[in-house]
Amino acid sequence: MKNEEQTQNDVSLKDMLPLDEEKTEELARQIQDLVDGDNRQAALELFDKLHPGDQGEIIEDLPRPTQQEILTTIAPEEAAEVLEYLEPEDVADVFKGVEPAVVADILDETDPDVTVDILRQLPETQTRDVLEEMEETAEIEPLLQYADDSAGGRMMLEYGVVREDSTAATALENLRKQGPEVQEIHTVFVVDAEERLAGKLNVVRLALAPPNTPVRDIMEREILSVSGKTDQEECARMMERYNLDQLPVIDEGGKLIGVIISEDVIDVIEEEATEDMYKLAGIAGERVSGPLRFSLRNRLPWLYINLITTFLAALVISIFESTIAQVVALAVFLPIVAGQGGIGGTQTLTLVVRSMALGELSRRGRWRLLFREVSLGLINGLLLGVAVGLVAYFWKGNYMLGLVLGLAMLGNMLIAGLAGAGTPLLLKRLRIDPAVASAVLVTTCTDVIGFFLFLGLATVLIGFLL
Amino acid sequence: MKNEEQTQNDVSLKDMLPLDEEKTEELARQIQDLVDGDNRQAALELFDKLHPGDQGEIIEDLPRPTQQEILTTIAPEEAAEVLEYLEPEDVADVFKGVEPAVVADILDETDPDVTVDILRQLPETQTRDVLEEMEETAEIEPLLQYADDSAGGRMMLEYGVVREDSTAATALENLRKQGPEVQEIHTVFVVDAEERLAGKLNVVRLALAPPNTPVRDIMEREILSVSGKTDQEECARMMERYNLDQLPVIDEGGKLIGVIISEDVIDVIEEEATEDMYKLAGIAGERVSGPLRFSLRNRLPWLYINLITTFLAALVISIFESTIAQVVALAVFLPIVAGQGGIGGTQTLTLVVRSMALGELSRRGRWRLLFREVSLGLINGLLLGVAVGLVAYFWKGNYMLGLVLGLAMLGNMLIAGLAGAGTPLLLKRLRIDPAVASAVLVTTCTDVIGFFLFLGLATVLIGFLL
Repeated sequence: MKNEEQTQNDVSLKDMLPLDEEKTEELARQIQDLVDGDNRQAALELFDKLHPGDQGEIIEDLPRPTQQEILTTIAPEEAAEVLEYLEPEDVADVFKGVEPAVVADILDETDPDVTVDILRQLPETQTRDVLEEMEETAEIEPLLQYADDSAGGRMMLEYGVVREDSTAATALENLRKQGPEVQEIHTVFVVDAEERLAGKLNVVRLALAPPNTPVRDIMEREILSVSGKTDQEECARMMERYNLDQLPVIDEGGKLIGVIISEDVIDVIEEEATEDMYKLAGIAGERVSGPLRFSLRNRLPWLYINLITTFLAALVISIFESTIAQVVALAVFLPIVAGQGGIGGTQTLTLVVRSMALGELSRRGRWRLLFREVSLGLINGLLLGVAVGLVAYFWKGNYMLGLVLGLAMLGNMLIAGLAGAGTPLLLKRLRIDPAVASAVLVTTCTDVIGFFLFLGLATVLIGFLL
Repeated sequence: MKNEEQTQNDVSLKDMLPLDEEKTEELARQIQDLVDGDNRQAALELFDKLHPGDQGEIIEDLPRPTQQEILTTIAPEEAAEVLEYLEPEDVADVFKGVEPAVVADILDETDPDVTVDILRQLPETQTRDVLEEMEETAEIEPLLQYADDSAGGRMMLEYGVVREDSTAATALENLRKQGPEVQEIHTVFVVDAEERLAGKLNVVRLALAPPNTPVRDIMEREILSVSGKTDQEECARMMERYNLDQLPVIDEGGKLIGVIISEDVIDVIEEEATEDMYKLAGIAGERVSGPLRFSLRNRLPWLYINLITTFLAALVISIFESTIAQVVALAVFLPIVAGQGGIGGTQTLTLVVRSMALGELSRRGRWRLLFREVSLGLINGLLLGVAVGLVAYFWKGNYMLGLVLGLAMLGNMLIAGLAGAGTPLLLKRLRIDPAVASAVLVTTCTDVIGFFLFLGLATVLIGFLL
């Protein structure tokens, strides 16, 4: 009953694009129900009706055995298309335990740059076995030389290319033969007789040129390119800065070996933003679906480093133990000064680290920024200091306690601005990645100085607090 | 002397692309030196030799008066090209106090979508004055209706379009007439007699079709589009999901009104990533170069909300004041349990919030994630608990103090995992943006429960601590 209903519903699926999250989840559930009901044929038919982009999302929602079953049962060229929409790490997980010959059949149909990303995620022995079974390895092996996050690891191998000594008519005809992927590109690259990059040429211009015009005469000679070893982030920044939607990649001899397209850059930008966020929190490299073991190894060092710095803060408190013994109420206010400093410092730090990553911080802007953040700390400290001072006074009935707390707050917010802006600026000058080390340094500052200011002032003014 | 040297150096500037940060800063300094030396002509010549992308970076490095002087002195069409590489907020700053007629001349030459972004950042009266002086307002005014962060606010107005009832030859000739920007596009859109979007067509395919073929016969009819009101993030996710490099925008009647291209999506993705980071830190919407007043208004609410929650933590401590009075050493260890809990919770929270934003968290994944993070909290808590317990024991020589601290740490790391993963999942279900409210909720949990566990255990076991 339910199945018939579904099949009718789904005829119109292509009209429903794009699928929202709920519809995607519902389809994943339907497919899983069909598989559980041993109605595999219907499950595959339903899956088959979808856009590869949606198929990818649905695969992610299914349990491992169903993922394996679907990807190894549908035609290899269809499976290959779905792989392009999945994370290479997830594909490697799905391929765990699948016959090398089956994996090889699918990867033979997959874009070489995607294939390489997947092969990198497979265990070494499986990669070797799969490569042995594959037929299309000629394009794969050179790519495997380049690091995952380099231009060579990111580039596409399918792009339009014409010889500079051909005529417009021959060039156009050759482009047609290069297949549909190439036709997606509006600019083709021009190479010389030695396959070295010589220029670029707009397809519309090519199509409209008199048939006998030599390509050399209509091509643009000014063209930016990168080497295969260039870092992917540098490529992304370059494409952004010069508004390029394609960036040719060349080898040492100037030979054109691939092209980076702006869709790939989107992934790079997203990855880099994620990395920056994760570095600040001490979880760089993690994924929600990654192995627990990895997360544990990844987070513990950060937690232990922070533990050492909180012990530093504890040490500061222990210096003033006798003051606390005299006025136990001081212990109650301990988290307030340090906590607010930590939050203020993190606000400044996040702004500065992200602006640095986006290249928004100019030379002239650095000192101004420091001054700006210290001023903000001062003003915020004043406003917060008055607030906490008043609360403390009304709560504990001691005006001097309020004053001590307020002054410590003012001082610590100033430190928060100084450390929050100064630490990443200093680290950058020392060529250390500000995202990695800043957070712990800033909170150590605000903790240690916060406790010191509060308890130090209290010790000096102890006579008024008793 | 120095100037002659520079002029010679700079002849080869175009061969030096891309400029790195140092070279950019050096050029900015050279230009400023020339302006300071009243050698404006040489400064402009040097500026003129650069790629607009680099000109944009250099403008950002110069002081306000020089920025104004350069942009209002060079030809309006050249200034217009530079504007495309600057942040609209910065352009609005530069235009402060410039004659409306001068601004209008430049904006008349600028891409309409860029112009609109800039106009939105100008003070209202200046926008009105400039619009009055402008000639090319026909394209601007419809765009101004759409929100800045909608498809209508992002779309480009220059795209290739052909009629479905024309022949291949006419279509190609029309494309040529539509100018060079249009030729940058490999896919053109096909509209019917009422200008409604009917399909799309690859340019190479068009160029190779027999001249008399009707466009209707060779176009692709399956095409995704969005309305002008669609949120920009939704557009970006759609283009990513279906690997589109162009997304047509239509009005209520199905008429084609603009196109979003993948280069614009890069900006959206970057902006959204930045917003997520900033929301977690309570600084959403800020810029390093933004006005101090804005940052103050922006950060204070967050600081005050956090202040209330730290007072909540202080309240918990005050419940146990008599315990602390008996064992003052407890005060020393106060920041440790709560601090580590806060850090652990932030690690989990960052991972979960970012994965949600990237759409990496599947339905099936949510419960698994909660279980995963609680497990991690348990293991980390065990390892950290043993470490702090031993340190406390050796430091203060009381094994029970070590045990109390270790147990409280274990419990609080468990809470950190639970709150760090549970809070954003819960907020998402309640349709509240997890990035905004999660951080304060999680740290309140870890603070309050951390202090309660530590001091509560100490109170129960007070007999062993004395």
